[in-house]
Amino acid sequence: MSSSATHRSLLDPAAQDLLLRQAYTEDRFTGEAVPGDALRAVHDLVRNGPTAFNQQPLRIHLLRSGASRRRLVRHLSPSNGEKTLAASLTALLVVDTAFHLRLPEPCPAFAGAAALYAEDPARRERSALLNGSLQAAYFLVGIRAPDSRWGR
Amino acid sequence: MSSSATHRSLLDPAAQDLLLRQAYTEDRFTGEAVPGDALRAVHDLVRNGPTAFNQQPLRIHLLRSGASRRRLVRHLSPSNGEKTLAASLTALLVVDTAFHLRLPEPCPAFAGAAALYAEDPARRERSALLNGSLQAAYFLVGIRAPDSRWGR
Repeated sequence: MSSSATHRSLLDPAAQDLLLRQAYTEDRFTGEAVPGDALRAVHDLVRNGPTAFNQQPLRIHLLRSGASRRRLVRHLSPSNGEKTLAASLTALLVVDTAFHLRLPEPCPAFAGAAALYAEDPARRERSALLNGSLQAAYFLVGIRAPDSRWGR
Repeated sequence: MSSSATHRSLLDPAAQDLLLRQAYTEDRFTGEAVPGDALRAVHDLVRNGPTAFNQQPLRIHLLRSGASRRRLVRHLSPSNGEKTLAASLTALLVVDTAFHLRLPEPCPAFAGAAALYAEDPARRERSALLNGSLQAAYFLVGIRAPDSRWGR
């Protein structure tokens, strides 16, 4: 199924490789600090990725201190512990099941959207997981974009 | 939070605009046919987006016939009906909660992955929703890439 060559894409091959074709989940880390600017650039790129009613259930906690990551590692599978401790930064992606309280901000066009969720915690949890996962995927794509040669 | 200009990105501005910054969810359709090649190119681009254990719970049904879309519309909110019928193609994204049966194919490195899910339907449903949503997001990003001027 390698039909990409037969159809024109508006995304140039270098961008295709960078984001998806030649990208792999990193397993080793140098411990070099990640500048806040680089993270803000990723957020700025992906923050408006499409979700239902523009909802924004994703919350990203940035764990920079060794103490915060040692605390996290106790909740990870053992095979993920060492690499998490070796990194200078871990982004912990979680969802807020009370996302509907601020839904009128990203979804001003449909004032009734929040009420759809207010009375139904099960619907809210399912929606937070689905749409928060969409947001997580945009973040995973976006974090492949910044130039990591920031120190040079 | 417009810090993108302060940090170098490996993704050129045109690609940033195409995929995320200037992309909007389309609300009107011409009815022009979408070539199969264009869809295969999207699939080929996004098929290896990162998921847990490389799992692939997403299933995409391509509804081309008017009859199939009229059947679908009965299950949509009324505001989505007219535009769905006007399009020449609707991609229906669903998840397969029995994804673990084929997990050894995308995840040969961890033979025990399927067993983690086999005995636990609730875990499987949650994982299908989370990872299927990640895959859905890669598809939503990828479908912004093909050149729709295929007929010209």
